[in-house]
Amino acid sequence: MTAVEPFASRLDFGTGILRPSSLVLRRNLSDMANVYAEEVARRKLIEETGDTLVYQVYVVELPETEGHLLHCATVIHPGRVGHEYFMTKGHFHVKRDRAEVYLGLVGEGHLILQRDDGTVISLPMGPGTVAYVPPYWAHRTANTGAGPFAFFAAWPGDAGHDYETIEEKGFAKILVCRDGRPALVENPNIR
Amino acid sequence: MTAVEPFASRLDFGTGILRPSSLVLRRNLSDMANVYAEEVARRKLIEETGDTLVYQVYVVELPETEGHLLHCATVIHPGRVGHEYFMTKGHFHVKRDRAEVYLGLVGEGHLILQRDDGTVISLPMGPGTVAYVPPYWAHRTANTGAGPFAFFAAWPGDAGHDYETIEEKGFAKILVCRDGRPALVENPNIR
Repeated sequence: MTAVEPFASRLDFGTGILRPSSLVLRRNLSDMANVYAEEVARRKLIEETGDTLVYQVYVVELPETEGHLLHCATVIHPGRVGHEYFMTKGHFHVKRDRAEVYLGLVGEGHLILQRDDGTVISLPMGPGTVAYVPPYWAHRTANTGAGPFAFFAAWPGDAGHDYETIEEKGFAKILVCRDGRPALVENPNIR
Repeated sequence: MTAVEPFASRLDFGTGILRPSSLVLRRNLSDMANVYAEEVARRKLIEETGDTLVYQVYVVELPETEGHLLHCATVIHPGRVGHEYFMTKGHFHVKRDRAEVYLGLVGEGHLILQRDDGTVISLPMGPGTVAYVPPYWAHRTANTGAGPFAFFAAWPGDAGHDYETIEEKGFAKILVCRDGRPALVENPNIR
């Protein structure tokens, strides 16, 4: 176990910016190949409006080992790829039985969860929503509002990220805008 | 591992109230025997102003097992026992290498931490402060402001609470009000 001293960061509830952050991950449309159901719409969007920033993650770097609690703040910008809301890539934990806690800060979004057996549900999130990702559920978040959607998250240091399973198979359901409101529908591309 | 479904609670950033909470712990002055350095002042305070509520904890109940992430919101009311600020009992984790993350919501306080070797430090906390309790540090929080001090916390399901070590030995330093400001000073009763 690496010795870590107590420390503090500052989270802006109004913007989701967490500082100091040793690492800021940025995901533009060009980083999201085959993440959205309408891949043609993604490419067209890049051509027409440029390589837009979809989300950024302010990561507090800590040892990724048992006992530590990793945490970050994420800001998803408003937008859609075809009918599907801007969202994060989504992942299982490598250790499938590791949970995660989300806290909504600003804006409107949904936490989308998929269990190993293919069950998908979504939980609406807004400022003050504390959402629990139980063990064994893959998770991603989508911005369903008109402005930025930001949230804070914490998870066990030894959880690990398995993005590959979701990249290969997708979620069985996707969150689309239907009649101006979020609706969870079958993924037409389910692999 | 008990199967838990995804769920959400709602946290009020202005008050620290987290609902629904399956459990609300309340700690009055009468529950805090031998926690503060000035025990006589504690008894006198109860006689003179009644058995005041020091803090309450809104607990989201989950299995206390590996993989889960326990979380709660705590509200510490303003006040002092002698020179010492109203604070929580404080604890080590039974599994000493389990960390914890705090997020300040409203009011002013300090996170007070003590390592196994007796080193004590304190971190000021306010709205948006994300404070990290690394593995091996006992921790308690104190309200140093004029109004309620509330924060959200998350920790590993298998961490466990060891209150006894702190109850028996105390912290080596205490947080007192000196010239109207918080100061970390030697605990005169250190056992």
